[in-house]
Amino acid sequence: MRARVFVTLKPSVFDPQGRTIVEALHTMGYGDVGDVRQGKYFELEIETTDSAKAKAMAAEVADKLLANPVIESYRVEIV
Amino acid sequence: MRARVFVTLKPSVFDPQGRTIVEALHTMGYGDVGDVRQGKYFELEIETTDSAKAKAMAAEVADKLLANPVIESYRVEIV
Repeated sequence: MRARVFVTLKPSVFDPQGRTIVEALHTMGYGDVGDVRQGKYFELEIETTDSAKAKAMAAEVADKLLANPVIESYRVEIV
Repeated sequence: MRARVFVTLKPSVFDPQGRTIVEALHTMGYGDVGDVRQGKYFELEIETTDSAKAKAMAAEVADKLLANPVIESYRVEIV
C-alpha cells in the first residue's frame, strides 16, 4: 500500500522559507497570495494489504524519523 | 481559498534522500517499507473565492517558482 506523509511546521513556529516565497511571489506580481507555509512530503511504499496496519506504521515512522514532533506536525493518508 | 501544492521528483530521477530514509528505516526494523520518495509540500492562502481561479494561480506559481519542471512534477489541490 502507498502511504503519504505531510510534515508541516506547527502554526506557532515561524516559517522563514514560506515568508521568502510570499515575498518572491509578490515581486512577481502574485499579490493575491497571502501566506505560504512550506513542508515536507513523503510517499512510502509499504508491503502490506492491511490499510490500518499501513497507516499505523506510517504514523510511527513519521513520529520517529520523518518529523520533529517538537516543532512539526504530520498527517498520514493511505492511497 | 487554500491551495496545496505537492512537488515530487519525476519517477525517472534518482532520489538519494528517499534512498537514505529507506536504509535508515530498515536499520530501525521497518523492513516492510519498500520505497520512499521525498518531495516538497506547500500550503498557499489565496485571496479569492473562485476555486478555478485559485487552482490556475497555484499551478502557475508551482510551474514558475515552486517546482523545477525539468526534474520535478507537481500536483495542485484546492481545499
